[in-house]
Amino acid sequence: METVKDILKEGMRVANEDPRRVIHTFKVGLALVLVSSFYYYQPFGPFTDFLGINAMWAVMTVVVVFEFSVGATLGKGLNRGVATLVAGGLGIGAHHLASLSGATVEPILLVMMVFVQAALSTFLRFFPRVKTKFDYAILIFILTFALISLSGFKDEEILDLAESRISTVVIGGFCCVLISIFVCPVWAGQDLHSLLASNFDTLSHFLQDFGDEYFEAREKGDYKVVEKSGRNLERFNSLLDSKGDEEALANFAEWEPPHGKFRFRHPWKQYLAVGALLRQCANRIDALNSYINSDFQIPMDIKMRLEEPLRRMTSESGRSMQEVSISLKKMIKSSSSDIHVFNSQSACKALSNLLKSGILNDVEPLQMVSLMTTASLLIDIVNLTEKISESVHELATAARFKNKMRPTVYSDSGSISGRAAMPIESHEDGHGVTVLNDVDASNNVDNSLGSENSCHHVAIKIVEDGEIHAHTSLLEDMRRNDRLH
Amino acid sequence: METVKDILKEGMRVANEDPRRVIHTFKVGLALVLVSSFYYYQPFGPFTDFLGINAMWAVMTVVVVFEFSVGATLGKGLNRGVATLVAGGLGIGAHHLASLSGATVEPILLVMMVFVQAALSTFLRFFPRVKTKFDYAILIFILTFALISLSGFKDEEILDLAESRISTVVIGGFCCVLISIFVCPVWAGQDLHSLLASNFDTLSHFLQDFGDEYFEAREKGDYKVVEKSGRNLERFNSLLDSKGDEEALANFAEWEPPHGKFRFRHPWKQYLAVGALLRQCANRIDALNSYINSDFQIPMDIKMRLEEPLRRMTSESGRSMQEVSISLKKMIKSSSSDIHVFNSQSACKALSNLLKSGILNDVEPLQMVSLMTTASLLIDIVNLTEKISESVHELATAARFKNKMRPTVYSDSGSISGRAAMPIESHEDGHGVTVLNDVDASNNVDNSLGSENSCHHVAIKIVEDGEIHAHTSLLEDMRRNDRLH
Repeated sequence: METVKDILKEGMRVANEDPRRVIHTFKVGLALVLVSSFYYYQPFGPFTDFLGINAMWAVMTVVVVFEFSVGATLGKGLNRGVATLVAGGLGIGAHHLASLSGATVEPILLVMMVFVQAALSTFLRFFPRVKTKFDYAILIFILTFALISLSGFKDEEILDLAESRISTVVIGGFCCVLISIFVCPVWAGQDLHSLLASNFDTLSHFLQDFGDEYFEAREKGDYKVVEKSGRNLERFNSLLDSKGDEEALANFAEWEPPHGKFRFRHPWKQYLAVGALLRQCANRIDALNSYINSDFQIPMDIKMRLEEPLRRMTSESGRSMQEVSISLKKMIKSSSSDIHVFNSQSACKALSNLLKSGILNDVEPLQMVSLMTTASLLIDIVNLTEKISESVHELATAARFKNKMRPTVYSDSGSISGRAAMPIESHEDGHGVTVLNDVDASNNVDNSLGSENSCHHVAIKIVEDGEIHAHTSLLEDMRRNDRLH
Repeated sequence: METVKDILKEGMRVANEDPRRVIHTFKVGLALVLVSSFYYYQPFGPFTDFLGINAMWAVMTVVVVFEFSVGATLGKGLNRGVATLVAGGLGIGAHHLASLSGATVEPILLVMMVFVQAALSTFLRFFPRVKTKFDYAILIFILTFALISLSGFKDEEILDLAESRISTVVIGGFCCVLISIFVCPVWAGQDLHSLLASNFDTLSHFLQDFGDEYFEAREKGDYKVVEKSGRNLERFNSLLDSKGDEEALANFAEWEPPHGKFRFRHPWKQYLAVGALLRQCANRIDALNSYINSDFQIPMDIKMRLEEPLRRMTSESGRSMQEVSISLKKMIKSSSSDIHVFNSQSACKALSNLLKSGILNDVEPLQMVSLMTTASLLIDIVNLTEKISESVHELATAARFKNKMRPTVYSDSGSISGRAAMPIESHEDGHGVTVLNDVDASNNVDNSLGSENSCHHVAIKIVEDGEIHAHTSLLEDMRRNDRLH
C-alpha cells in the first residue's frame, strides 16, 4: 500500500514538473491506435493476417521512434527510414550477387557478407561524431541488411519484402512525425530558447540582489540571509547542471523544421556557447554567495568605502542580463544591455582605483584574503557579463532577430525595458558620459569598449601591478573547469 | 580521397584508444553468424522459410542487445527477455478477454487496451529511476503487448506465436550473453576498478611532483614548467570528466555476475563515492597548478620558510594515494596509506603553526592572497586525502578485500609498497611518533586521527582565529560544485 502511494506521489511530481509529459503519453497511445487501425481496416488485409509482417513493422516503428520532442522524433524517424532504405538496397544487391554463385556457395557467401557488414558497422558506432547523431541509423542498417540478405526468398519475393518493410517503416514514421508536429508539439528548439532565457533571469535576480544581501547581512548579522542564499544556490545548481540538457536539446533542435519564430538553420550551436558562458558566470556567483555570510571580519569603514562600486558592479551586470533576457524572449535585437555593461565596467574601474589608492593599507594581512577574493570574483563577473553580451549579440545577428522598433527612452512604462538607461557618471575618473537614448548610448559604449575604459584592461592593469595576479589565475582555472561541466 | 584518409585516420585512433573495440566488432559478427546458422540448419526450418518470424526475431535480438561490455549486454538482454515474457502473458490475457466479448466489440476493446497500456508505460518512462535501468524493458513491453494482443489469431495460434517470440528472444539473447562472457570478455566492473586505480595514479604523480615544480619554478623562472603543467592539466581534465563514464560503468557492473576477483554484490556504488572525492581533490590540484607559475611575487625567504611543510604535505598525500592505488590493484586491505595521511597531517599542523607565528606580518597585503590561497588549497587537499583514504577503507571492507599477508617493513625490495613507511617527526610540535612497522603505525594513526592532531581540526582552528575563513568557504563552495560534475 505504501509503495502504491509512493508511486502515485512520484507520478504526480513527474507530471507537475512538466505537464506536457501527460499529453505525450496520449500522443503515443493515439499513434499506436492509428497505425493499428490503418492495418486493421485496410481493404487488402484480412482479419486473420492482422499480425502480418506489415502491421508488425509499423507498430514497432511507432513504439521505437516516437520521442518526447519533435526534433528527437524526426531524428530517429529519419535515421530509421534512411537506414532501412540504404540497407534494403544493399541487402537486395548482396542477395542477388550470392544467388548467382550456386546453391552450395550461396549461404557461405551470404553469411560472410553479413559478418563483414556487421563488424564494419559496429566499428563505425565507436566514432564519436557518428555516435552522437547516427547511432540508431547504423543499428537499423545492420539489422535490415542481415534480415534481407539472409532471407531465403527468390529475387522477386525479396523485392516485395523490402518494399513492404520500407513502406511500413515510412507509414509508421510519418504517423509519429505528423502527430508529434500537429498535436501539442514539443519543440526542442523552443525549449532550448526558453531554458537560456530563464537562466539569464536566474543570474540577473541574484546579481541585482547581491548588493543588498552582501551589505545588509553584515549590518544585521542575522540568519535569514543564509536561508535565502540557500534557495538561490539551488537555482544555481540546476543552472550549473544544465549542460547535458542544453546539448541534447541543441542536438534535437537541429533536426527540427522552421517553427514559430525560428527559421531554417537557426544558430542552435550558439546557444551552447552562450550557455557555457552563463555557467561560468554562475560558478563565480556561486563562490560569491558563500562570501555573503563569511565576510564578517572586514572592518565596517572599509566596507563602506567599497560599497558604492561593488553595489554598482553587481546591479548593473544584473540589469544587463535582464535586458538580454527580455530581448531573447521577444527575439529582438537590442543594445539596451550595452549601457549596463558599460556602467558595470566604469564601476569596476572605480573599484580598482579605490584599491590602488592605498585604502587597504591599514587592513590586517589575513583579513584581506576574503575581501580581495570577493573583489576579483566581481571583476571577473563584470568581464564575463561583457562576453555574454557580445555572445548574445552574435546570436541575435546569426538568428536574424528583428531590430528594436524604436527607442523606449521617453516611455513612462514601469517595466525595466521601458526605462531610460543611461551611463552613470563615474566620479573617480570623470569618464562618464550622459546621453539621452539607447541608440546614442550604445554608440558610446561601443567606442568605450574598445578604449582603455574596458574592464578587461582594468583587470590586466591590476595584474601588472602584481596585486591579484594569483586570483586571476584561480579564476582562469575555474573557467577551465567550467568547460568540463 | 582526403575524406577516406581522414576516416581511416580516425578509425586508427578509435582502435588504438581501446583495441578491445576491434575484437568487439568481430564478436558481434560472430553472434550474428551463429544465430543465422542456427536457423539456417535447423531440421524443421526449410530454406525458403529462412526469414520466418523466428529467425527474424533472433537476428534482431542479437543486433539490438549486443553491447560492448558484459554488464550492458546482460542488462539489455534481461530487460528484453523479461519484458517479452511479461508482455506476452498479459497480451495473451488481453486477447482472450477481448475474444469473449463478440466480434463487434472485440477490436474496439483491444485497441482501447493497447492505448491505455501504451500511455501508462510511456508515462513510467519519465520516472528517473525507471529511466536509468528499465527504459528498454518498458519499450519492449509496449511493443510486445501491442503485437500479441492486436494479432488476429485464435487463442491456440497466439500461444504458438508468443512461444516462438519468447524462444527466439531467449536464443538470441543467450547467444549474445555467452559470446560476450566467453570470448575476450569486457567486464564493466573490471574497467571501473582500473579507471579508479589509474585516477589515483594520476593524482599521486602530480602531488609528488608538486613540491619540485612549485619551488624549482620560482628558482629558475623558466617556461618548461608551464608546459609540464599543461600536460598534467590534460590528465586532470580527463579525470574531472570521468563522472559520466564511472556512473555508466557502475550501472552496467551491477548486472554482471561474479568475475575475476569481484564477488557477487561487489560494492560498485562505493566506487562512485571514492571517484567523486578524487574529482574534488583533482579540482583543488587543478587550481594549485595555476599557482605554480603565478607565484613569482612571494619573497624568497618566506617561501623558503614554508617550503618544508608545503613539500611534505603534497609528497605525503601523493604517497598515500600511491599506496591506495597499489592496494586497489592488488585488491588487498592495506593500512600503509594511513601513515602517509598522518605525516601529511602533521605537516599541515606545522604549516598552520608557522602561519600563526607571525611569519607573514612583513609581507605586503596584496601579495598574501596568492600564498594564502595556495596554503588553504593544500590544507584542503590533505583533508580530502584523509577522506579518500577512509572511503577506500570502507570500499575494502565492503568488497571483502584480503588482508595484507605480512608487514613488508623489513623487505629490501625497491618498490614503494615494500618500503618502510614511518611517521616523520614533526619538529614544530614534537607530536611525531616513531614506529617500526606498518601495523603499529596504523594503530597510532588511528588514535591520532581522533585526536586534535587531525588536520581537519587544525583547519577549524585557523577558522576560529578568523584568518582564512573566507577561503575555507570558497573551497567548500568548490566542493559543492564538484558534486554537480
